[in-house]
Order: sequence, then C-alpha cells, then structure tokens
Amino acid sequence: MTDCFAVIFTSTRTEGDNGYAEAAERMAELVSEQPGFLGVESVRGADGVGITVSYWQSEAAILAWRQNPEHQVIQARGRLEWYSAFHTRVCRVEREYRFGQ
Amino acid sequence: MTDCFAVIFTSTRTEGDNGYAEAAERMAELVSEQPGFLGVESVRGADGVGITVSYWQSEAAILAWRQNPEHQVIQARGRLEWYSAFHTRVCRVEREYRFGQ
Repeated sequence: MTDCFAVIFTSTRTEGDNGYAEAAERMAELVSEQPGFLGVESVRGADGVGITVSYWQSEAAILAWRQNPEHQVIQARGRLEWYSAFHTRVCRVEREYRFGQ
Repeated sequence: MTDCFAVIFTSTRTEGDNGYAEAAERMAELVSEQPGFLGVESVRGADGVGITVSYWQSEAAILAWRQNPEHQVIQARGRLEWYSAFHTRVCRVEREYRFGQ
C-alpha cells in the first residue's frame, strides 16, 4: 500500500450518541463504494478521543469523497453535533514496515 | 504543522502487560527529548487494537528515533512480547484542516 495516501482524522466526541452511530455505519458503507478507497482503521478510547485513518489511491479520490453530497451533510452535522474538535491531515505514504498477520 | 512528517503505527497487543506499560511510559519520555519530535496522538480500543501517530520535522529525525539504541531494545521486545502484529507507515503531511479547540 506504499505510493498511496492516508487521511488521519483525529477527533473528540461530544456527549451522547445523537444519531452518530447510525451515521457512522452509513458512512462506512458509502466510503467503501468510493472509487480509489483502499481501507480504513479506526479506534476510539473511553475518553472520547478517536483516530481514524483512511487510505486512498490518489488525492483526487480523497477530494471526491470530501465533496460527496451525502458525506457533506454528515460533515456539517459532525461540526454541529458530534465533535467538539477534530483535525484532518492528508498525507502521502512514503514507506512502510509490517510485522505479523 | 503542515510540511512535517507523520508515522502511523497501527498495532495489536498480545494478552497481559508483561512490562509494556512501564516501557511505554519510558518511550514517551525518551521520544519527547528527540530532536525534531513534534508530538504524538495515541488511542487503544478495548479489543487491543491501537493507533499511534507521531509527528516529526524531518525524515532524518524519524530515522534517528528508529535507530536510538534504547528504542531498538524496546522495538525487539515489541516483536517478541507485546505485539501480535503491527504496521508502520511513514508519511509526508501535505495539508490539514482543523475544527474547534
């Protein structure tokens, strides 16, 4: 998966679900259908801090996902309802190492 | 923090502590003294899967940390004792967005 792109999304959730779980499930389904989507890894701790890393074939694929109309509605709800803060970093994967699995 | 590098370390822990917590604490201290180290974000879920992202000024700084003698001992113990699998990706941060905080 070298020569790909990673989007690191670090976020802090607000209290309560407020429709988050359902939207997260729908976004997981929708993103998996996006051209150029390679995979996603996501962990959230008990303190509400989460890191999600998604992997993409190109920057154009990342931009297309960012501009997907259904995703844009969800992004707006994220800012209003689900996150107190987040930080998105678009990165180029330069090299990688693997152990196990 | 654009124009920096990110190391995405995705790992699965083995069962039990086996000295992991103490080593993690020592590594957090040691890495914070490394030239070119910018910060770290780390989350582990209840299922043992964790994502740690560290940020660096340069690839040379990442290499120096990888080759730090005390860190190398810990890397070897990681493969033997603490992780059933891990995946390390060295990335160049191309752009970033922020909300809140």
